[in-house]
Amino acid sequence: MNSEFVVGIDIGGTNTKVGIVNESGNCLIRATLHTNEYILVDDFIDALAGLINRLFSELRIGKNIKGIGIGAPNGNYFKGTIEYAPNLNWKGIIYFADLMKVHFNVPIILTNDANAAAMGEMLYGAARSMKDFIVITLGTGLGSGIVVNGELVYGHDGFAGEIGHTIIVINGRQCGCGRNGCLETYCSAPGIIYTYKELLKKYNVIPEVKDSLIEAKYIEQIAKEGDVIAIEAFKYTGEILGIGLANSVAYTSPEAIYLIGGFAKAKDLLFEPTIKSFNENVMNIFKGKTKILPSDLNDGDAAILGAASLIWKMD
Amino acid sequence: MNSEFVVGIDIGGTNTKVGIVNESGNCLIRATLHTNEYILVDDFIDALAGLINRLFSELRIGKNIKGIGIGAPNGNYFKGTIEYAPNLNWKGIIYFADLMKVHFNVPIILTNDANAAAMGEMLYGAARSMKDFIVITLGTGLGSGIVVNGELVYGHDGFAGEIGHTIIVINGRQCGCGRNGCLETYCSAPGIIYTYKELLKKYNVIPEVKDSLIEAKYIEQIAKEGDVIAIEAFKYTGEILGIGLANSVAYTSPEAIYLIGGFAKAKDLLFEPTIKSFNENVMNIFKGKTKILPSDLNDGDAAILGAASLIWKMD
Repeated sequence: MNSEFVVGIDIGGTNTKVGIVNESGNCLIRATLHTNEYILVDDFIDALAGLINRLFSELRIGKNIKGIGIGAPNGNYFKGTIEYAPNLNWKGIIYFADLMKVHFNVPIILTNDANAAAMGEMLYGAARSMKDFIVITLGTGLGSGIVVNGELVYGHDGFAGEIGHTIIVINGRQCGCGRNGCLETYCSAPGIIYTYKELLKKYNVIPEVKDSLIEAKYIEQIAKEGDVIAIEAFKYTGEILGIGLANSVAYTSPEAIYLIGGFAKAKDLLFEPTIKSFNENVMNIFKGKTKILPSDLNDGDAAILGAASLIWKMD
Repeated sequence: MNSEFVVGIDIGGTNTKVGIVNESGNCLIRATLHTNEYILVDDFIDALAGLINRLFSELRIGKNIKGIGIGAPNGNYFKGTIEYAPNLNWKGIIYFADLMKVHFNVPIILTNDANAAAMGEMLYGAARSMKDFIVITLGTGLGSGIVVNGELVYGHDGFAGEIGHTIIVINGRQCGCGRNGCLETYCSAPGIIYTYKELLKKYNVIPEVKDSLIEAKYIEQIAKEGDVIAIEAFKYTGEILGIGLANSVAYTSPEAIYLIGGFAKAKDLLFEPTIKSFNENVMNIFKGKTKILPSDLNDGDAAILGAASLIWKMD
């Protein structure tokens, strides 16, 4: 039994990142799978297992690793399931850990992807000295992992920490979860695309690229080049996110909120309007207390390391 | 030293309730003070000390009780302060525990009033078997105490659990906290008065009593007598509260949410529209899991018992 290595997996709506990590939190090798290319979860599992086995070969380690830790949207720590994830192709309740068990006869622990990221930040990242903080993952969706008094908040059913699905605008935008006005519909990659297109319409501007090319990355790029509508889209996104974060502070009063994930890479474009709105909207007793920060871990590593830590911590 | 008794105090925007309790959670004697009659905190402290001494005389116990536990709006457990409470006359930071120390040379512990109520429910009420629940106090304001994994959530600064001051309607009603659209401005005694008066205006109806007599109790009374506008005011209040509670579930996924306090006494008038809206607005993964319940403790006892428990638990 080779117990020096753990597989950490971060399943996102667009990409799934896989890493093999040691106990010090070093990711020795990484690979990526396009989650949304797999309509059936079985096909995804097959591809994921193939990829993991390839990484084992490349690192020249056997299959007998210590275990596999997985972070997934709407992942349930207690049951190893992914349930009704709005941003995945696989609907209903997926017994993901059990399906992985068919390929790997090692301990497999699954949790919410943002919870995994929070674990990563707490064990290896900037939150190492903190007992109360929140991690917000910004990508295809808006995920969150809430740490209170040094412990992840799971709630009575293992599903706590769905800040992306708090209603921020009553009767607002349609959400993938079937309701309206969720924070995620404004503050995520699809959210800013929606906002940008709304602004194009409002100002009667015809976009320079065809509709299918208007992605969050594109809006970020032209905003950096000075496009005023793209900049306004970021401002609006930050305004709403700042209110959402002010609400979060009223719940658990964290020392810091970390914004991580693909969409958080827009950096100042997103952070500046978010922090401005947060400062304007946070209740007076909390003013000046909570820091809004990026991760200081390598890109995408927080969730991989955090997922892996589920295995390291199981003894 | 008579250590069989503890004073439990629940400071509310309108009334302050004082009880002397034993360790089994029995409240032996109760009295009430009108909080809002005292413009200066020093006058309030004098009156409160006088009242406590009178209760000591009535019970024929000495001054040497085990301690005094206090629940107060915007109360800080770490510092013993009341800070910027929107619904109290005393502005800024009040060193309340220190001020009480002048009158009573015993341990004095202060916490948020809703946190105290949550402690009361956890130790003596319906939440005794629960590890994850929320208590919402509905009165002059909307307070909240959040319990995660059997522990009260204090946050890094002791101010966590201000669900009443999450923004539910962006640019909504003016709140006593200086911001707009807080849940409290819709779901509290003043909130329903505002809603009722808005509805009177909308329907061009002249109220049957003069403006100063339109209190939450009055609206409750005429709603019970079938007044359609008063009933609509309760429906709207419940609709907004249901959305707020659905958001709360997305944070900490509690097993139950208890609605307590003066305004929660409207019972079905408030609970029915709240539960209806909650069921409609809660995210699918949480559906059917979280109970919305009244307290099963005597009126007002939850906060008194919970405040007292701070002293019982200090050993």
